Amino acid sequence: MEDTRTRLVTAMAELFRRQGFNGTSLKQVINAAGVPFGSLYHFFPGGKEQLAEATIRSSGTAYQQLCEAIYDAAADPGSAITDLFDGAAEVLEQSGYADACPIGTVALEVASTNARLRQTTADVFGDWCESIATRLGRAGIDPPVAQELATVIVAAIEGGFMLSRTARSPEPMQITGRFMRGLVETALTERARR
Amino acid sequence: MEDTRTRLVTAMAELFRRQGFNGTSLKQVINAAGVPFGSLYHFFPGGKEQLAEATIRSSGTAYQQLCEAIYDAAADPGSAITDLFDGAAEVLEQSGYADACPIGTVALEVASTNARLRQTTADVFGDWCESIATRLGRAGIDPPVAQELATVIVAAIEGGFMLSRTARSPEPMQITGRFMRGLVETALTERARR
Repeated sequence: MEDTRTRLVTAMAELFRRQGFNGTSLKQVINAAGVPFGSLYHFFPGGKEQLAEATIRSSGTAYQQLCEAIYDAAADPGSAITDLFDGAAEVLEQSGYADACPIGTVALEVASTNARLRQTTADVFGDWCESIATRLGRAGIDPPVAQELATVIVAAIEGGFMLSRTARSPEPMQITGRFMRGLVETALTERARR
Repeated sequence: MEDTRTRLVTAMAELFRRQGFNGTSLKQVINAAGVPFGSLYHFFPGGKEQLAEATIRSSGTAYQQLCEAIYDAAADPGSAITDLFDGAAEVLEQSGYADACPIGTVALEVASTNARLRQTTADVFGDWCESIATRLGRAGIDPPVAQELATVIVAAIEGGFMLSRTARSPEPMQITGRFMRGLVETALTERARR
């Protein structure tokens, strides 16, 4: 059985995906976690902000591990990229466009209003970029180019979530993924040519 | 002097850019607009939702007109794209990363929680894509490719806002813009080759 702390973080992560930070009340988290109210302040004396920070870090790591597993299972970097975007599109479609990025909505909400949580989301995006850049570098793309490509891919997947969720269509995410694959394959070809 | 309705919409748009939908209270809007509370329900009997819808549509149109002016002033489609992204990066930097897209945060917040506002944000993104696709088409890119490229560009600028705001750096937006320019120039070259 999951411990109480994990249940709180898991419940908050699920609510973040669907309705973000300001749209999620502690009461909703407690109810979804099925734990007594007092346990929240036992594990998170800093309240909503502290729970949010733990949730962003834990969801960020979990999402990164999922993406790395998908990436590493692919035959080549180009397929890895479309697998990532097509996988995200499939999850969106199957969940009625609710099971989205656990960080994106919160990141925009807190960017100008909560310095601590803004930094937490920046750390997560930084880790994601690093993870992708390392893999593109291993495939032979020059590290500075790999770093820039990774930034564009993370931006594109977040923008893909936004457009696919608002349009309730997998297409923006799928289309964006195909163009990202093109950018990666172009970088690999340019590298091979030199 | 601006009329009361316009003042309410302008105040809400400014608050949407910085703190989104759920983070913005009607009290804040009233205070920022400097109008009596009763006037809100006079102009927007549907309350926050109706004011939000008017704000999303009006900000969406204003942002589109700004982007079209920047695009149409550029020497070629490639420069137009980097002008758009570099311009957004500059505004972010100058405003302490607060003056961001008026639609993005709200779009993610409402995507799974408010069908009417979700549709409104989808309409705005659809108009933006159409506007870019039309311009890329005029430059000689095949309409279906132009449509897809426009989707990727809108996703990328929204993701660029997210990464630049969280990192408090213009770089993600600038880097993303350079790669989007590359995609547009590749599409133009492919077209020229045939």
